[in-house]
Amino acid sequence: MTAGLALADVRAAQERLRGVTHRTPVLTSRLLDQELGGSLYLKAECFQRTGSFKLRGAYNKLAQLTADERDRGVVTMSSGNHAQAVALAAHLLGTTAVVVMPSDAPPNKLAATESYGARVITYDRYREDRDALATQIGSAEGRTLVRPYDDWDVMAGQGTVALELLEDAGDLDALVVCVGGGGLLAGCATAAKGLQPTIAVFGAEPAAGDDHCRSFAAGHRVRLEHVPRTIADGQASQEPGELTWEVNSKLVTAFVTATDAAITETIRWCFERLRIVVEPSGACALATLFAGALGPLDGRRVGVTLSGGNIDVSRFVALFG
Amino acid sequence: MTAGLALADVRAAQERLRGVTHRTPVLTSRLLDQELGGSLYLKAECFQRTGSFKLRGAYNKLAQLTADERDRGVVTMSSGNHAQAVALAAHLLGTTAVVVMPSDAPPNKLAATESYGARVITYDRYREDRDALATQIGSAEGRTLVRPYDDWDVMAGQGTVALELLEDAGDLDALVVCVGGGGLLAGCATAAKGLQPTIAVFGAEPAAGDDHCRSFAAGHRVRLEHVPRTIADGQASQEPGELTWEVNSKLVTAFVTATDAAITETIRWCFERLRIVVEPSGACALATLFAGALGPLDGRRVGVTLSGGNIDVSRFVALFG
Repeated sequence: MTAGLALADVRAAQERLRGVTHRTPVLTSRLLDQELGGSLYLKAECFQRTGSFKLRGAYNKLAQLTADERDRGVVTMSSGNHAQAVALAAHLLGTTAVVVMPSDAPPNKLAATESYGARVITYDRYREDRDALATQIGSAEGRTLVRPYDDWDVMAGQGTVALELLEDAGDLDALVVCVGGGGLLAGCATAAKGLQPTIAVFGAEPAAGDDHCRSFAAGHRVRLEHVPRTIADGQASQEPGELTWEVNSKLVTAFVTATDAAITETIRWCFERLRIVVEPSGACALATLFAGALGPLDGRRVGVTLSGGNIDVSRFVALFG
Repeated sequence: MTAGLALADVRAAQERLRGVTHRTPVLTSRLLDQELGGSLYLKAECFQRTGSFKLRGAYNKLAQLTADERDRGVVTMSSGNHAQAVALAAHLLGTTAVVVMPSDAPPNKLAATESYGARVITYDRYREDRDALATQIGSAEGRTLVRPYDDWDVMAGQGTVALELLEDAGDLDALVVCVGGGGLLAGCATAAKGLQPTIAVFGAEPAAGDDHCRSFAAGHRVRLEHVPRTIADGQASQEPGELTWEVNSKLVTAFVTATDAAITETIRWCFERLRIVVEPSGACALATLFAGALGPLDGRRVGVTLSGGNIDVSRFVALFG
């Protein structure tokens, strides 16, 4: 395990992920550039294995377990995408996983996690403490706890998203990254600032769950009174991670938000114009741009994470029906 | 204008299309290969400019107009995708287009066609003769008629789909192509058989509009009594084209069908598993494979066209809601 996070850690993660994760495409669109007045580069992690960027961090973590730790397996907690990622990473590396998931997680995410061979334990998102539950299982069964974001190795893995994006798109003026607990953002900010120190890095979160915005304004981590209720289930964090905040509070230029309505319209835009499927948590960064959160782009070159595409047809229909 | 169709014509079209059309990705999926028991290569024309393969044929045709013909413009008839393609090709080549479209064409297709600068004239799909209407406009305004499939240059352009697919996927045992009027199939069969003479080429059509199946069984073109009512609006042809049939009756191994229900489930599969948007007419070929139309694949390497992705959210919701 590494302490702290530097560009070198993200590069080392990239080596571990070679042949395991997809190098997802960077999408561009004349129409999008026209509408937003800049040059947009969309990193389409909806096409990543397991349907989101989360496999990068999970695999980078699990690949560094000792033989003894692999024998005993891992345990994690997640609203869905990290769950699938840990389940697949465990399968690929020949170890076992127990996943603590909210009982109201989208059924496709529950089913996908089990299909990779993980044991799923559900809990009530609004009443039970998932961290305590996962920690307890970890102690009882000798399993290594794989936190979804507050882990240096997980963050380093997620940072490969920005590494690939900057390699493919070239110099960028800004990078806008979806934020839940802040792991993707911390990894991407570290990679982006390491490669291009003048790049502006923005964290994008749902307006209903603006714990990072509030924390940034306050100058310290702020915990929301309630678990946010937002369609962006992967971004419903109540407060920034402790370690992710250590990175993000230093490297991030600003945090921006999008309403659930703006996120929904962005999903529609991606469906009709790009013909791709993006889930609410994955559409948030682009939604903040449609909402004008960065002001007029004036030709700026902006990288954007489309961080996942795990939404089943029935949930999609419910969103628009 | 060329008479007849050979591999050389498809190669010449490829040169004309360079820098104009996208080289769309060939998608593969471990899960799909597992489910079907073969190696599948999906040519994702849903990511083509205008959202379908049709730009290839339209541009190849319009690029060969004389200066005088360009001055006078073109006219065409289409349920939607060819309309958008001709509209964009006309715009790119500095000429004008009039498009005769059915009044019940999906609104997104009508709007997109107009957005490229074409003049749209609507007609009743079940009562009026669109060919007569387009021919009449052509005569009155001196416009060149651009048929959606029964044209050698259009067919040659569509054939570049197979040319790219075989270049990217390597040798294939079979190729399954969506069929409406038969232009994509004629072009693809010509290219595929020209490059790999032993390849088996299948035409895939909706069960509700099986004019090619019936024609193949009869040994001559059969006209269906009514215009087919199918969700695959781009494949609702009443009989094979005259010129396309000349090619397809010689080169095609067999025609296969998929029900509207199978097409719908294939759209769902593409959405949830590949995170891509495929329209009914574009999902038909893959749907025939899910329906087992080619029998057990036994490890065969099969190319499949996903020929378009023009379905708006409201129509998608209606399909599944």
